[in-house]
Amino acid sequence: MLVNSRAVRIEWGDCDPAGIVYYPRYFAFFDASTSALLERALGMTKHHYLKAYDFSGHPLVNARSRFLIPTRFGDDVTIETTATDLRRSSFDVHHRLLKNGALAVEGFETRVWVTGDPAKGTMKGAPIPQAVIERLSKG
Amino acid sequence: MLVNSRAVRIEWGDCDPAGIVYYPRYFAFFDASTSALLERALGMTKHHYLKAYDFSGHPLVNARSRFLIPTRFGDDVTIETTATDLRRSSFDVHHRLLKNGALAVEGFETRVWVTGDPAKGTMKGAPIPQAVIERLSKG
Amino acid sequence: MLVNSRAVRIEWGDCDPAGIVYYPRYFAFFDASTSALLERALGMTKHHYLKAYDFSGHPLVNARSRFLIPTRFGDDVTIETTATDLRRSSFDVHHRLLKNGALAVEGFETRVWVTGDPAKGTMKGAPIPQAVIERLSKG
Amino acid sequence: MLVNSRAVRIEWGDCDPAGIVYYPRYFAFFDASTSALLERALGMTKHHYLKAYDFSGHPLVNARSRFLIPTRFGDDVTIETTATDLRRSSFDVHHRLLKNGALAVEGFETRVWVTGDPAKGTMKGAPIPQAVIERLSKG
Repeated sequence: MLVNSRAVRIEWGDCDPAGIVYYPRYFAFFDASTSALLERALGMTKHHYLKAYDFSGHPLVNARSRFLIPTRFGDDVTIETTATDLRRSSFDVHHRLLKNGALAVEGFETRVWVTGDPAKGTMKGAPIPQAVIERLSKG
Repeated sequence: MLVNSRAVRIEWGDCDPAGIVYYPRYFAFFDASTSALLERALGMTKHHYLKAYDFSGHPLVNARSRFLIPTRFGDDVTIETTATDLRRSSFDVHHRLLKNGALAVEGFETRVWVTGDPAKGTMKGAPIPQAVIERLSKG
Repeated sequence: MLVNSRAVRIEWGDCDPAGIVYYPRYFAFFDASTSALLERALGMTKHHYLKAYDFSGHPLVNARSRFLIPTRFGDDVTIETTATDLRRSSFDVHHRLLKNGALAVEGFETRVWVTGDPAKGTMKGAPIPQAVIERLSKG
Repeated sequence: MLVNSRAVRIEWGDCDPAGIVYYPRYFAFFDASTSALLERALGMTKHHYLKAYDFSGHPLVNARSRFLIPTRFGDDVTIETTATDLRRSSFDVHHRLLKNGALAVEGFETRVWVTGDPAKGTMKGAPIPQAVIERLSKG
């Protein structure tokens, strides 16, 4: 599977009064990492791949994280992201957030490829294009 | 177990370009809901209960959510929160986010009761005070 | 002018490692307060008033805040919001965030009433409907 | 004066249902840009410069932004940041957010160099160290 790696600087504003990352921010990092994986696989930004593949997005069915080592502002971490299972209209994503090479946070997302308008309630699953499956599957 | 219910208005700023809630915001809602549960159980704000029980917080070991029905800006939802398992120094929390009475998002957190300074790396688990366990356990 | 007042609880997740509100969060509070003012004036949620008055939103031309007294998690504050000047297609909003009755933060926004699609670059100013001006002007 | 330039990718999660940046996020970008300016001037991360110069932070007295050109997810922007006035215990910061070379958003912050504990209400202004003033003033 294609693995995308990106560097993230933990900012002051990502942290809470305990001085460590406010945990919902990890999910924001992971959401951006999923987009980055698709952007790399498809060779265009999310703004463009939504149009090119004529769909509304890849919202989540479920998300899960394990928090192993705290991170704090000033930490430079790396997030490695890969699709782990590609089904007809849904897929799983695995994120590994590394601090000094050690696994600090792990994230798992199940997402659906959708068409329609989520805000109007007309969102529904659609087949993931074969080209997308192939590009995410590359080693 | 004690159940705390709170009303949350979904704001424009909680939503993404698809017009529905940007999913990390649900975890922010749930984090505030856990604090609200403890505030109700202990009869004081988090600012005060951290001092009264002399601990550093209740950071997460893992978090998980299932997203069943999208919510969007202007929606008034209810979040019902309860502890589901209280162990020596960790506990589980269950959140049910209801939209028009239907379960829209479900959240699960495992948290640790800690002392020490998370930002300095001296954080460690500590026994949950018996009074806290009793108050969270009340029907 | 119509004044809308709303209660806001400062949450743990609104605060930074200094233990006080991370200042961009005040602008999020103010953005929601402007929507709340319009919702009260027009008697419907933002989701509905965008449709009823057939416009795309009221994005900002400029925003400004003065920070007088720090607020921290657990504080219950009140935000009083009013339009201070209503022009053809733009308007000014004034927010007063009060803590224990004292002015803690003050916010000023200049917003434009727009039609078109902001994300496609076709956004342009449009006349504020007379009914909106009248309802915001009521004492 | 020293100017720090940094690249920022606008993410899906930075945008609102209009598809453009939710404006409080610009202030988050600017807050991180001020830290980045100081980090570059002092040659260490914020985590370390708070300790090295023995102070509590540089909270804001006021903040202001002008929004000229909308930005949306997938945009790669540049933020140029410089101190514009350095006084005894306060300083002004100017941010220029550029999109394709054009000024899209401009930010202005007035900050105070403080000691004490903001959350405990013991925060007070302190003289900006001469070394900090000199390094921020370099061309």
